[in-house]
Amino acid sequence: MTNTQVTLVQIDNYGPWTVTPEPRREVDLQTLQSRLYADLSQLVGNREGYVFFTRFDNMIAVTNGLDTAAHSLIQESVRNRYPVTVSFGIGVHESPAVALGQATDHLQDAGSAQDSGRTEILRGEPLPESARTEEDVSLAHFDVNDATGKYTDQLNEFDTFIHIEQGYAELMRYMRRAHDALSFFVGGDNVIAVCPDITAEEYADACEHVREAVGVDLKVGVGTARTAQDAGMAAKHALERCRREGTAVEFDR
Amino acid sequence: MTNTQVTLVQIDNYGPWTVTPEPRREVDLQTLQSRLYADLSQLVGNREGYVFFTRFDNMIAVTNGLDTAAHSLIQESVRNRYPVTVSFGIGVHESPAVALGQATDHLQDAGSAQDSGRTEILRGEPLPESARTEEDVSLAHFDVNDATGKYTDQLNEFDTFIHIEQGYAELMRYMRRAHDALSFFVGGDNVIAVCPDITAEEYADACEHVREAVGVDLKVGVGTARTAQDAGMAAKHALERCRREGTAVEFDR
Amino acid sequence: MTNTQVTLVQIDNYGPWTVTPEPRREVDLQTLQSRLYADLSQLVGNREGYVFFTRFDNMIAVTNGLDTAAHSLIQESVRNRYPVTVSFGIGVHESPAVALGQATDHLQDAGSAQDSGRTEILRGEPLPESARTEEDVSLAHFDVNDATGKYTDQLNEFDTFIHIEQGYAELMRYMRRAHDALSFFVGGDNVIAVCPDITAEEYADACEHVREAVGVDLKVGVGTARTAQDAGMAAKHALERCRREGTAVEFDR
Amino acid sequence: MTNTQVTLVQIDNYGPWTVTPEPRREVDLQTLQSRLYADLSQLVGNREGYVFFTRFDNMIAVTNGLDTAAHSLIQESVRNRYPVTVSFGIGVHESPAVALGQATDHLQDAGSAQDSGRTEILRGEPLPESARTEEDVSLAHFDVNDATGKYTDQLNEFDTFIHIEQGYAELMRYMRRAHDALSFFVGGDNVIAVCPDITAEEYADACEHVREAVGVDLKVGVGTARTAQDAGMAAKHALERCRREGTAVEFDR
Repeated sequence: MTNTQVTLVQIDNYGPWTVTPEPRREVDLQTLQSRLYADLSQLVGNREGYVFFTRFDNMIAVTNGLDTAAHSLIQESVRNRYPVTVSFGIGVHESPAVALGQATDHLQDAGSAQDSGRTEILRGEPLPESARTEEDVSLAHFDVNDATGKYTDQLNEFDTFIHIEQGYAELMRYMRRAHDALSFFVGGDNVIAVCPDITAEEYADACEHVREAVGVDLKVGVGTARTAQDAGMAAKHALERCRREGTAVEFDR
Repeated sequence: MTNTQVTLVQIDNYGPWTVTPEPRREVDLQTLQSRLYADLSQLVGNREGYVFFTRFDNMIAVTNGLDTAAHSLIQESVRNRYPVTVSFGIGVHESPAVALGQATDHLQDAGSAQDSGRTEILRGEPLPESARTEEDVSLAHFDVNDATGKYTDQLNEFDTFIHIEQGYAELMRYMRRAHDALSFFVGGDNVIAVCPDITAEEYADACEHVREAVGVDLKVGVGTARTAQDAGMAAKHALERCRREGTAVEFDR
Repeated sequence: MTNTQVTLVQIDNYGPWTVTPEPRREVDLQTLQSRLYADLSQLVGNREGYVFFTRFDNMIAVTNGLDTAAHSLIQESVRNRYPVTVSFGIGVHESPAVALGQATDHLQDAGSAQDSGRTEILRGEPLPESARTEEDVSLAHFDVNDATGKYTDQLNEFDTFIHIEQGYAELMRYMRRAHDALSFFVGGDNVIAVCPDITAEEYADACEHVREAVGVDLKVGVGTARTAQDAGMAAKHALERCRREGTAVEFDR
Repeated sequence: MTNTQVTLVQIDNYGPWTVTPEPRREVDLQTLQSRLYADLSQLVGNREGYVFFTRFDNMIAVTNGLDTAAHSLIQESVRNRYPVTVSFGIGVHESPAVALGQATDHLQDAGSAQDSGRTEILRGEPLPESARTEEDVSLAHFDVNDATGKYTDQLNEFDTFIHIEQGYAELMRYMRRAHDALSFFVGGDNVIAVCPDITAEEYADACEHVREAVGVDLKVGVGTARTAQDAGMAAKHALERCRREGTAVEFDR
C-alpha cells in the first residue's frame, strides 16, 4: 500500500513582489522561476525525491525520505541565494491527493500566500523512518505514442502543443477523479503521475478514456519503491519495455 | 498591423538522448530543461525578445530584433555549455500562427526532430531592419481574477491547478481558432498571448467565452510595440490598470 | 587527530575540448566553469562537504561523509547536464596535503588529464563510517583586518586585489610548508585552510609571518568537527568572536 | 592607441549581508558568488565585453560597447534575480589601470562598500560611439608551457596550483608596474591581461621576468580590436599559433 509524502512549496508573497515597486521584466521572472525550480529539483532530487514545476510559484514535490531538518536546510539554501523565500507544507497519506490536501491546509492555516507577514512556514509531519516501506511511492510515467512521427514532424508546433495539452488535461482530470492521483506534464510528450495502488486494467482504462475523449494515444510504465527517485527510474524502465514490446501498460514488478 | 517574428527552438535528437545508453535521472533532465530555458530567456531577452517554455524540448520565441547573426551566437553559446544542441526555424507574418507554421516548416524540411544527423539547423529570414515598425508585436497578458482569494487560499493546490489549467486550455484553443494567436502559461495564474491586431470587444469576447465554458474569470492588459520586451511591459502596465480600476480589458494606448 | 578525506575533481580532457574544433568563446567557458563549480558546491555541500574552485578545471574538495556511491551519483549528475565529464580521486590522511597526494596519484595512475580515453575515473577509498570521529576535519577561516577601511574604500581595486593576492600567496605557501595545510581564496578578503591539528600559537605565527613578509594583517577562526560543513560554520563563528573581541586567533572549543 | 572602458562591479553591502543575522552557509555563498559571476559574464559577454571574477564581491570588466542604458539593464536584471544588488563605476583611458582608477573613484565618492545606504550606484561616462576605433581594446592571453606534462600529471594538485599561483602573482605585479596592465587568472593555467599598446619585445621581457623570478615558462597571444570579445578571440587564435609554431609571442596582426 502506498504512503505518499507530499510537500507543497509556495513562494512567499510572490504576486506582490513581481509588481513592486513596478512590474518586473518578464524574462527575469521566467529566469528566476525556472532556476529556482531547477535548484529545488536538485536539492530534493539529491535526497531521492521529485519536484514538479506545476505553477512555478506553487510547486508539488514527492518527498519520501526528507525529514524536517532536510526541509529546513532547503529553505535556508533558497533564502541565501534568491530574492524570495519559500514556505513548505507536508502531508502523508495513501492517497496522494489527500496528502496534498493536508499539505495545503498547513499553509492556508498559517496565512494567505500574499500575506507579507507569512514567510518560511514549515509545517507537517514527515513519514517516520520506522514506518517506511518499499511500497510507499508509486509513479506512472506516461508518454504519447509516436508523438514525433504523428505530431512534431508534421504539424505546426503550437498545434502539436495543443494536442499534447489536451491529452494532459484529460488524463490529469481523469486520474484525479478516478484515483486521487496527481499528474504532471514534465516536458516533451511526457506526464508523470503520483498514484495510489492502481491495477494494470485501471491504467489501461485511463489510456482508453484519453484516446476516446481527445484522440491522444498513451502508453505507461509504472514503478513502485521506497522513494520517488527509485519508483521513477523503475517506471522509466518499464516504459522502455512498452516501447520494445509494443505494449500499452508495463509494471516494474 | 502586426508583423510577428517567431522562432521555433528545438533541442536536437533529445528523445533518444534522454534514454541513451540508459534512461537518465529525471531530476537531472528537469534541471537541464529548466536551466536551458532560463538561459535562452536571458539570451533572447537581452535582445528584446521573449521565450516561452512550451514543451521544453520545443520552445517558441518572439524574436523581433534578433537577426541571423544573433540566432547563430545563441546556438553557439548553447553548444559551449550544454550536452545538447538546438535548431532554429524562423518565420515572419502578421499572423503569429502562420509565422510559427513557417518556422516549423523550416525545421521539418531539414529532417526529423529525432534524426541524429540533423543538428543546429538555422533557417528562415528574420524581419529586415528597414521593414520594422512600432506595431510589429502585440502581446496580451491575461490573469485570473482574484486567483489567490478564490483558489490558492481555499482549495487543495492540485484542484487550484486544475482550474487554472482548464482556463488556460480553453483560452489557448479559442485564441488559436478565432485569432491565430499563440497563448502560453507563464506561471502563477498568468497567460501571455502573442496576437495579431484584436479589438477590445474581441478580447472581452474571449474572456466571456472562458467564463461560460469553464467558469474561470479573466482580465487582460494589451501592449503593442516594436519588440516583445516593450509590448510585454506595456501589457503588464495595462493589466495593473485593470487591477486598479476594476476593468476587464485595458490597452496601453 | 584530524583525518581529512580529500577528493580531487578533474574535468576530463578539458584543455583540448576548449579549443576543438576552434577556440571557444571565453565568456561561455567562464560561465561553464563557474556554474559547474557552483553545482559541485551544492552537490557536495548537500552532503556536508566543501568544494574549493582552485583552478576550475581541477578542484579540491573536503568530502568527509561522502562515500563511493555519493561520488558516483555526482559524476552521473554532471554527465547528464554538462558537455564535459569529471574524474575523482579520493585520499584520506591526518595530513590534508598527503590525502591530496593520494587523490592525485589515483588520477595520474589512470592516465593524463588530456588523455581522451581517460574519463570518469573514480578511485580511492573513502573513510569508513566506523572510523569517523568528531575531530576529522579542521578548517581555519582567515580574513584581512579592516580590508574595507584600509583597501577597498581607498585604493584602485586592482591594487587592493594585488594586496589580497600577496597575502594569500604568502599564507598558502607558509601553511603548506609548515603544516601540510591546503589554503584557498574564497572571495572578498577570505581564505579557508584545510588543516591538521595546529595550536593557537602556531596560527599566530602564521599571521605574524604574513604581516612581516607582505604587510597584510590577518585574523583567524578555527573549527573542528566531523564534517567540513560543521567545521566551517564553527570557524565562521570563531572568526566573528575575533571581530567582536579584537583578538587575532579564536577556536570554536 | 588603446582606449579601454573598464567597469568596476561591486556587490552592495556584501560583507555585512554574509553574516546577518548569522553567518550564512559557505557552500551557498560560493554558489551565489559563482552564479552571479556567470550571469554577469553572459550579460556583459552578450554585448561583446569580458568580466573577470577577481574577488567575486568586486569584479572587473572590460565594457567597450556597453553604454549607460546597458549597464542599467544589467543592474536591474541582477536586482530581479538575486538577494543582493550591484554598483557600477565606469572609467575610460588608454591605460587600463587609470581607467580602473577612475571607475573606483566613482564608487568610493559615492560611499563605502559596506554603507548600507549606498546601493546600485551607476556613475562614469562610457566611451561615446563616435570616439570608438578598432584599436580600443588589447588583450594578451598567457598560458604556461606544457602545464599538463610538467605539473598536472606529475605533482600533487596543490603544488601544481602553487606553481601556477606564483607565476600569476609575478606576472600580475610586473604587468601592473611596467605597463599599467591588469592581469586575471581565468582557470586552468591561463591568464588574460588587459593592456595598453605593448611591443612583442616587451611581452618577451615579461615572460623572461617570470621565468627568472619563479621558474614558470609562459607563452602569449595578443589581440587588438574594437571590443573585448573580438580582441580576446584574436588573442586565443594567436596563442594557438604559438602552440603550433613553438613561438613564445604572437600577435593577431
